[in-house]
Amino acid sequence: SSSLSNCTPMYSSSRPPTTCRKDSCSNWAATTVKAMRGTTAARGRVFMHRETLELLRDGRAPKGDVLTTAHLAGVLAAKRTAEIIPLAHSLPLDGVDLAFSLDPDSASVGIEARVRTRGRTGVEMEALTAVTVAALTVYDMLKAVDRGMVMGEFAVWEKRGGRSGVFRRRA
Amino acid sequence: SSSLSNCTPMYSSSRPPTTCRKDSCSNWAATTVKAMRGTTAARGRVFMHRETLELLRDGRAPKGDVLTTAHLAGVLAAKRTAEIIPLAHSLPLDGVDLAFSLDPDSASVGIEARVRTRGRTGVEMEALTAVTVAALTVYDMLKAVDRGMVMGEFAVWEKRGGRSGVFRRRA
Amino acid sequence: SSSLSNCTPMYSSSRPPTTCRKDSCSNWAATTVKAMRGTTAARGRVFMHRETLELLRDGRAPKGDVLTTAHLAGVLAAKRTAEIIPLAHSLPLDGVDLAFSLDPDSASVGIEARVRTRGRTGVEMEALTAVTVAALTVYDMLKAVDRGMVMGEFAVWEKRGGRSGVFRRRA
Amino acid sequence: SSSLSNCTPMYSSSRPPTTCRKDSCSNWAATTVKAMRGTTAARGRVFMHRETLELLRDGRAPKGDVLTTAHLAGVLAAKRTAEIIPLAHSLPLDGVDLAFSLDPDSASVGIEARVRTRGRTGVEMEALTAVTVAALTVYDMLKAVDRGMVMGEFAVWEKRGGRSGVFRRRA
Amino acid sequence: SSSLSNCTPMYSSSRPPTTCRKDSCSNWAATTVKAMRGTTAARGRVFMHRETLELLRDGRAPKGDVLTTAHLAGVLAAKRTAEIIPLAHSLPLDGVDLAFSLDPDSASVGIEARVRTRGRTGVEMEALTAVTVAALTVYDMLKAVDRGMVMGEFAVWEKRGGRSGVFRRRA
Amino acid sequence: SSSLSNCTPMYSSSRPPTTCRKDSCSNWAATTVKAMRGTTAARGRVFMHRETLELLRDGRAPKGDVLTTAHLAGVLAAKRTAEIIPLAHSLPLDGVDLAFSLDPDSASVGIEARVRTRGRTGVEMEALTAVTVAALTVYDMLKAVDRGMVMGEFAVWEKRGGRSGVFRRRA
Repeated sequence: SSSLSNCTPMYSSSRPPTTCRKDSCSNWAATTVKAMRGTTAARGRVFMHRETLELLRDGRAPKGDVLTTAHLAGVLAAKRTAEIIPLAHSLPLDGVDLAFSLDPDSASVGIEARVRTRGRTGVEMEALTAVTVAALTVYDMLKAVDRGMVMGEFAVWEKRGGRSGVFRRRA
Repeated sequence: SSSLSNCTPMYSSSRPPTTCRKDSCSNWAATTVKAMRGTTAARGRVFMHRETLELLRDGRAPKGDVLTTAHLAGVLAAKRTAEIIPLAHSLPLDGVDLAFSLDPDSASVGIEARVRTRGRTGVEMEALTAVTVAALTVYDMLKAVDRGMVMGEFAVWEKRGGRSGVFRRRA
Repeated sequence: SSSLSNCTPMYSSSRPPTTCRKDSCSNWAATTVKAMRGTTAARGRVFMHRETLELLRDGRAPKGDVLTTAHLAGVLAAKRTAEIIPLAHSLPLDGVDLAFSLDPDSASVGIEARVRTRGRTGVEMEALTAVTVAALTVYDMLKAVDRGMVMGEFAVWEKRGGRSGVFRRRA
Repeated sequence: SSSLSNCTPMYSSSRPPTTCRKDSCSNWAATTVKAMRGTTAARGRVFMHRETLELLRDGRAPKGDVLTTAHLAGVLAAKRTAEIIPLAHSLPLDGVDLAFSLDPDSASVGIEARVRTRGRTGVEMEALTAVTVAALTVYDMLKAVDRGMVMGEFAVWEKRGGRSGVFRRRA
Repeated sequence: SSSLSNCTPMYSSSRPPTTCRKDSCSNWAATTVKAMRGTTAARGRVFMHRETLELLRDGRAPKGDVLTTAHLAGVLAAKRTAEIIPLAHSLPLDGVDLAFSLDPDSASVGIEARVRTRGRTGVEMEALTAVTVAALTVYDMLKAVDRGMVMGEFAVWEKRGGRSGVFRRRA
Repeated sequence: SSSLSNCTPMYSSSRPPTTCRKDSCSNWAATTVKAMRGTTAARGRVFMHRETLELLRDGRAPKGDVLTTAHLAGVLAAKRTAEIIPLAHSLPLDGVDLAFSLDPDSASVGIEARVRTRGRTGVEMEALTAVTVAALTVYDMLKAVDRGMVMGEFAVWEKRGGRSGVFRRRA
């Protein structure tokens, strides 16, 4: 994967250091992974053929810009979590950030969503909804070339604020 | 798992024969797994602590009926796929069926969605959206007792109709 | 109606003591009818054939679990009140509870919704929207066997908080 | 009720001949009550204080034009029925008409919705959703002056097309 | 335009004194153009044939009450701004007011939306969304008689509150 | 504007030959401007400071990729037209294409939406909704640097199919 510049290793716990396309990440001002109060982070992964990942990396996906589309789909879904998950609360969100990383070793795209709120309840569902909808969108944008993709490893990785205190997943 | 009756083994390819709670499945008239034209099936799984699965199995989950809620969330999400996935087509759906199975061996809930359409394009996104939103809802209904659940193995398993012909995932 | 256990008489003002199916009610943790500040309660009723009520009571309704589906539909609708009622305000809701009671004497299902908010305006529209959509869902789940059902008696019964003070409907 | 002109008696079965404000009805081109294939009609009623009905009749309601707002709310809700009622099908609608009548004798507003489709399934839920949401909107527009209003008598009155043939409610 | 009473000249900066139909404006209690903290005003205009404007003025438009429908569409859209504009925040709105003026000299309908919030971020997008959707609705209600209408001059005219202080557009 | 390559002049009727950023356009497979039955095209324009247009052209806009975000917002809005415009029909769309062009001479972004349907009614409202929401999104993504932008010239330019035959706007 010499054509991939090493940027923003998103998470290294479960995988060897990951990489992402420089130009895809750099224009998301929101991607800075800050540890603030009331932030919840969730992650997931889309596994695909090696050739599909290269298509994505080189910007040759058939339906257009995969990661920007997945990013926006995730943000929009996070804002509508209370409509999608029947017993979820309506919460005012202060920010929804998504970061993507292409991992050639596992032939997968890693996705991390960070949701910030000043509200009193947790935002796990918002973060998980953002990640899964972003993953579904990656699938949709690439399914014409690779119908066998598998999405998984969706989990909450860090949760600050809320009544139950800090939660941190062990890798 | 002696307290689980063996019913409707949902899929046996990737796992040993699975089981589901009789009374949960039996009142979904829609759950019959027919192989018709224009049907697409997608699957996924929510992994949890063994104690959480027992809570679910025994109907002692804190927020109410987990599987019925997840079922309805999946059906509602399938109908709104075109709003959730940016470049998905609006399609008239003829039916959305979900089946759940509790698997004590892997301590997980298996979910299968089958979507039927008479439309001309495929309904992979509808089936995958139904499964992932059902899984998110299972998480939401149980997260108060088990924040470490992991959702995964989301994939299309069978696709009939559409321009690309029959697709069947090998287990 | 000897097969009905007497549980949670929901309201006795306009009707003789009502009953509900034990197992339907018991798993709604939210159903406790608390009198707190900022709570508004609305009620309504679905009248049907005696045989239809027995079908519902015995869990033999053709489309699945009627009351759980109606409960979730009511909660989801309450959260979307501002989209459904043109001039209603968007309000953050702290809780939406629904309770159902089967009344064999009048051959009807009673529905009560209680909506709690910390917001400054009333939540009558949220409570009424929850009740009517729950009633519509009861109709939808049973219409294959009884197209002549009538829905009615939708009204606000109690309102606390807001600028206009406490309102309480006389039975 | 000498100040009410006699126009478009909406339904006479359950009530003495009703009346409606000429100028409110006349600009709804859609209100013509045609008996075509695939049409379903539902009705309901909002009961209020006599003074509230006079306010409405004279166009002095505090939040603006009550009937036009209720009409639009009903049409919009009919189009979103599949989002509001969990197990309702998404159907392409060919038309949604609402008619309102002010009945001074019963101090109530009668509402009738007629929904037309070329689809294969019935549109009872669309017609009932239109009527109930229109009634909720009448309530919302007048609740500042009359919190005791009651909504009721929601029922399907006529159904043509669909697998179950013609249904007509006896008055 | 002798049949138009001179009422509520909405804005005079870019145009000679405008007029509006008395009866259309008078029943919008909300139309008072107050200058309060946290208010943002946006404007736009629909240009049409002179005959189309007269049709609108005389209440002879084919699909019904144009301005009331456009008003409600604008209010509803403002409440859903965060769903329509991908990166817009969800904000609790305290009020959405729309005013319309018919200008015979330029053969156009002027639209102004004022949105009030107690929130911390600006509401330009809410005000602009309200104005553009109201304009689209004017187009929809009149397109059967005038397909050549042009919508334009959409801009923010005044913004109070928010981090960037007061903004006022020069005419 | 030597740094702009000349690509896909979008429309030349009202303006001198326009240009667009090569890499923005090239990955929208849908942008080919075909003249097929049932296609409707609408256009609009966002006027801004020359410096803002250069920011956009150079990919230095503060909130991320402006045109891809606007494109997706337009497509999503087109699919939800019937929810946004009260009396618009729900229509199955076969395709929604948007093209953008940066015009340094007028310091504006031109937007064209083309909507295709096999349905029987026109899709003017879908095309106009796509263009205006795309324009609103351009405004949202750039408003931090240029609050004085003006959106306008929204009109239907070509309409094929439908009962009223071919319509073509003269430049």
